[in-house]
Amino acid sequence: MPLAEPNPTPPFDVLRVSHVEIGVSDLDRSAAFYVGGLGMVETARDDETLWLRGLEDRSHHCLVLRRSEAGSCLGIGFRVRSAEDLERAAAHFEERGALLADGEPRGQGRTILARDPFGMPVSFYHRQEQVSRRLQSYDSYHGASVQRLDHVNVYAAELQATHDYYTGELGFRVSEYTETDDSEPQLWAIWGHRKGNVHDLALTNGVGPRLHHIGLWVRGEMDVINACDVLAVSGFAGSLERGPGRHGISNAFFLYLRDPDGHRVELFTGDYRTLDPDFSPIRWSLDDPQRQTLWGQPAPRTWFDEGSPFSGVQPRKPLVNAKPLVAQGS
Amino acid sequence: MPLAEPNPTPPFDVLRVSHVEIGVSDLDRSAAFYVGGLGMVETARDDETLWLRGLEDRSHHCLVLRRSEAGSCLGIGFRVRSAEDLERAAAHFEERGALLADGEPRGQGRTILARDPFGMPVSFYHRQEQVSRRLQSYDSYHGASVQRLDHVNVYAAELQATHDYYTGELGFRVSEYTETDDSEPQLWAIWGHRKGNVHDLALTNGVGPRLHHIGLWVRGEMDVINACDVLAVSGFAGSLERGPGRHGISNAFFLYLRDPDGHRVELFTGDYRTLDPDFSPIRWSLDDPQRQTLWGQPAPRTWFDEGSPFSGVQPRKPLVNAKPLVAQGS
Amino acid sequence: MPLAEPNPTPPFDVLRVSHVEIGVSDLDRSAAFYVGGLGMVETARDDETLWLRGLEDRSHHCLVLRRSEAGSCLGIGFRVRSAEDLERAAAHFEERGALLADGEPRGQGRTILARDPFGMPVSFYHRQEQVSRRLQSYDSYHGASVQRLDHVNVYAAELQATHDYYTGELGFRVSEYTETDDSEPQLWAIWGHRKGNVHDLALTNGVGPRLHHIGLWVRGEMDVINACDVLAVSGFAGSLERGPGRHGISNAFFLYLRDPDGHRVELFTGDYRTLDPDFSPIRWSLDDPQRQTLWGQPAPRTWFDEGSPFSGVQPRKPLVNAKPLVAQGS
Amino acid sequence: MPLAEPNPTPPFDVLRVSHVEIGVSDLDRSAAFYVGGLGMVETARDDETLWLRGLEDRSHHCLVLRRSEAGSCLGIGFRVRSAEDLERAAAHFEERGALLADGEPRGQGRTILARDPFGMPVSFYHRQEQVSRRLQSYDSYHGASVQRLDHVNVYAAELQATHDYYTGELGFRVSEYTETDDSEPQLWAIWGHRKGNVHDLALTNGVGPRLHHIGLWVRGEMDVINACDVLAVSGFAGSLERGPGRHGISNAFFLYLRDPDGHRVELFTGDYRTLDPDFSPIRWSLDDPQRQTLWGQPAPRTWFDEGSPFSGVQPRKPLVNAKPLVAQGS
Repeated sequence: MPLAEPNPTPPFDVLRVSHVEIGVSDLDRSAAFYVGGLGMVETARDDETLWLRGLEDRSHHCLVLRRSEAGSCLGIGFRVRSAEDLERAAAHFEERGALLADGEPRGQGRTILARDPFGMPVSFYHRQEQVSRRLQSYDSYHGASVQRLDHVNVYAAELQATHDYYTGELGFRVSEYTETDDSEPQLWAIWGHRKGNVHDLALTNGVGPRLHHIGLWVRGEMDVINACDVLAVSGFAGSLERGPGRHGISNAFFLYLRDPDGHRVELFTGDYRTLDPDFSPIRWSLDDPQRQTLWGQPAPRTWFDEGSPFSGVQPRKPLVNAKPLVAQGS
Repeated sequence: MPLAEPNPTPPFDVLRVSHVEIGVSDLDRSAAFYVGGLGMVETARDDETLWLRGLEDRSHHCLVLRRSEAGSCLGIGFRVRSAEDLERAAAHFEERGALLADGEPRGQGRTILARDPFGMPVSFYHRQEQVSRRLQSYDSYHGASVQRLDHVNVYAAELQATHDYYTGELGFRVSEYTETDDSEPQLWAIWGHRKGNVHDLALTNGVGPRLHHIGLWVRGEMDVINACDVLAVSGFAGSLERGPGRHGISNAFFLYLRDPDGHRVELFTGDYRTLDPDFSPIRWSLDDPQRQTLWGQPAPRTWFDEGSPFSGVQPRKPLVNAKPLVAQGS
Repeated sequence: MPLAEPNPTPPFDVLRVSHVEIGVSDLDRSAAFYVGGLGMVETARDDETLWLRGLEDRSHHCLVLRRSEAGSCLGIGFRVRSAEDLERAAAHFEERGALLADGEPRGQGRTILARDPFGMPVSFYHRQEQVSRRLQSYDSYHGASVQRLDHVNVYAAELQATHDYYTGELGFRVSEYTETDDSEPQLWAIWGHRKGNVHDLALTNGVGPRLHHIGLWVRGEMDVINACDVLAVSGFAGSLERGPGRHGISNAFFLYLRDPDGHRVELFTGDYRTLDPDFSPIRWSLDDPQRQTLWGQPAPRTWFDEGSPFSGVQPRKPLVNAKPLVAQGS
Repeated sequence: MPLAEPNPTPPFDVLRVSHVEIGVSDLDRSAAFYVGGLGMVETARDDETLWLRGLEDRSHHCLVLRRSEAGSCLGIGFRVRSAEDLERAAAHFEERGALLADGEPRGQGRTILARDPFGMPVSFYHRQEQVSRRLQSYDSYHGASVQRLDHVNVYAAELQATHDYYTGELGFRVSEYTETDDSEPQLWAIWGHRKGNVHDLALTNGVGPRLHHIGLWVRGEMDVINACDVLAVSGFAGSLERGPGRHGISNAFFLYLRDPDGHRVELFTGDYRTLDPDFSPIRWSLDDPQRQTLWGQPAPRTWFDEGSPFSGVQPRKPLVNAKPLVAQGS
């Protein structure tokens, strides 16, 4: 089955992925990791919740930690362009019987919570409370000095159909994709975006839907290395899962970490622009070892198998059975 | 006079600044600078013209060097979203008697050349010939390893009116701006964008219209430093005009160079995203020394006075007389 | 058994480790790796031999590749302070019946070749032919931009005795060491130096004597990353064995590679000074996972097992049986 | 007059430059600069004095700040190899009537204070109190993350004679030097070392003796850039005097700062090894603009004119009148 054409007139205009909400067991421990180690900024906190943002963010949060359902992902938030887009999004999900809630959570305006056709909890809103930007507060930079949320990556059990929905219906555009080398190739992963870089939402074949990782943008390679050094001496040496290295796909420099509840976080830097409408998606073979890591090292098995379940949805086995290369014995 | 509101429904949809065309005296000498020193890629060459692109570019060119009118800027190219946008752009300029040409230059499809209301030659098109991307050709990276064109900066004699046109009419959005501290503040400079980072087109008060500089995107600080080292031992030590340093405005790390014909080039890296419609422009006082350089060093006088005239237009004195800080004795 | 005190009046004054000589199967292929990929400088070449140096070297070579005994190490060269020291070195080995040759190889003056008490071929000389330094030839820097030889690391079967000889007799000083946590701790590895940084010669417990790796100095982390990118697209993606990462021991940033004949090469940067006579050696437990990699990742099994045999000597099983941590399943 | 040959058997064995003692007006303000901005470590403090060290230092201090004679340099400390060397140093200066004191200051053992033949206060000792090393305390790295003292640079009014003393008598070796292009060239500056890199003590022609600058070693270019960013937003934007840039001499990447009392500090990284006895000094012409800055920018006039007087000695006019290139108008 081919890549779908992105819908040029989607029912509502998604600007970008905007925040992720995760369940954690201990807010202080999570703060030690995300604020102390990764250098994120604490915007607000109450007994149950911690709202974090990146150093360049003027919006209230890009990561919300809730003390409930530790290890689960509670939802992925997308920003739409306008109040009218939000109204249309509400109608879109209501028609499909997939609207879960319509309210005004802390730090953001009217927000609708829905399930996508595969069960993933997704929320939409068009503005957040504006807060002070810390971009030039260099005296408080530390650890990874995370600048902003870049993307999320989720396991999809029905990869082709999930791609068809996000691209063919919601207008996400594909920058790169992996398929099998069969005579009838099967899609194995896609990197889809709305904002004009490599991705807002990537889909990976696997037991899903589950969150694969949260991709946080850092300024460059040296911030990744600094994060490793700081985490290593702050009690988080065990959090490094894969890398640092260079992706073949996206060309980004990366490091994968596991947070104290097992959520996977990627530090990510250095992809490219995909603004031009004639940008044609880049194809990778599932069997190309440089797809995962340009430098040749395969990813460990955990990286392919583990992920955060979404609250309230039972993950399903993937329809595609092809297997990627895995680090020997991992 | 205040900042204008960006026109939410501009007559045609400008995606981004896309290429610059400059007059040079010696193609080989210019190639030594841009290809040998800055690491750009030569796409094509004939007796009169050299077409260059960045390492991540899949489009034919982002810089065109012509052996004529050395030291002049021959025009600034913008990419529009679709053929329909291009048709509307043609109509827009024809109505105003400002359409100069309608043709198909090498490497790009139908292109219209016009003058903006202030005399600046601007061209519009919606596609370029696709060529191979060199993003992962790391074995041929050298010098500054320029990735792509980021922005252009021009002197405007009628700063407020030029801003009003690009923002109020063509829908550019302002990320940052400088104004005087008068009781009735005057706009002194603006950074306007369409693509969602700090700028596509910046306007600086001065004898204009003239090209102030071409902003080329590099991966990070180390590529700027490497460019300095390579230029210094390749006969281009004299080309460094200002920096390296950190801008207050845009927060980018920068270096200003003068090419063999005196055109100013900025190596630029590390700004931020401005996709959200509620992003409010950041104000700077003309008298704030950290505006130009966060680290405190003022720019040399040449940086405020010199620029490339546009072909066929007589620059005019600026309407605003306020003076910025200048390095002592420079 | 404790660390030995360094002999304050060694029989001859070793300045530093100075070059390594290795057997390779294909000079062109080796040149593609060391010159093309790692950025070393070719000083001279004949049908059988390639002499290489680093970018800062003014001496003729720090790495000699011979088309014979591919995969073997042919010897390790040390520089002594003066002609008198060289004379005393000759006497030292002659008395022990360990002097193999006394001649004048290409690019260096009088040179004596000997076997150390454990069979390792070692050579000594006090000067090399001076050649042009390429330290500021930035326009030809590429790949890892190797600056110089930093150290060698060898497997020693008789770790304690080998340490006793180099330290107690030849005056090497220990910067760091690893020992077992037994009630009577056994030395497992030592880092010994003459030149005032972390090491000239490191000893690792294992089947020995064999060469563990050649340590080449690079300017910083970004040159290591650049080397990975360049090797990955030059046909050497398979050459990465371990890293990049940060050592606990030495604090250096590292990458281990295997050259086309399997010789292990470390790119190494960022250790510290050990000039002060009261610098006391730093102890590490064999069981401390941050010893190998501060960031926590264990080394692969190959890294502990494989090495280059020395020409003409049969490696022996190690006397110490303790086992370090190894990456699962590697 | 030619360069002197280094005395192969100096009266006492100087290991390296070891600490600098300066007068400041406000210990808290100096701590904000050196600890807060440059990332040095506070070892001890009393009402009058602050003892600082670098992150890799195991010795008590490399910089001592005293609340007296603000803006003056109180002395330069050298470490000698042994108690015997210290005894011989005492005798050397006593014979010349130049021994000022013999005591045991805080944090170091027996110390002799003397005047060199040109009036500069110099102290010698063979050990300091050992303190904990912070080399792997990455969670407290900030600002410039200064690792250690690298060198000092002083103005010498009698350049040739000062060189003759330190080289011909005390055994310093010259790595690089600047001389005039006259038919009888005059020495204008020399970089002298004992420890095997580019310098411990550099001499610059000028009103002297005065301290020109204290050279602090940082890990790499990115720490210099980080220091600029941090100083800029910590109230020290005005402290940047020159750079960042690359020296022709030494090849190091540098930044010159002025501390709150006007003492000049250089952040310095990336020179090369000079251990080999046959290393021949590198000559630079005073008129070569790339001598100062490989990238071509001349130094500002203040950099050539200003310095910290030494306590108790009246600076004299330099014997050599040649003038270096200076930034226009600075």
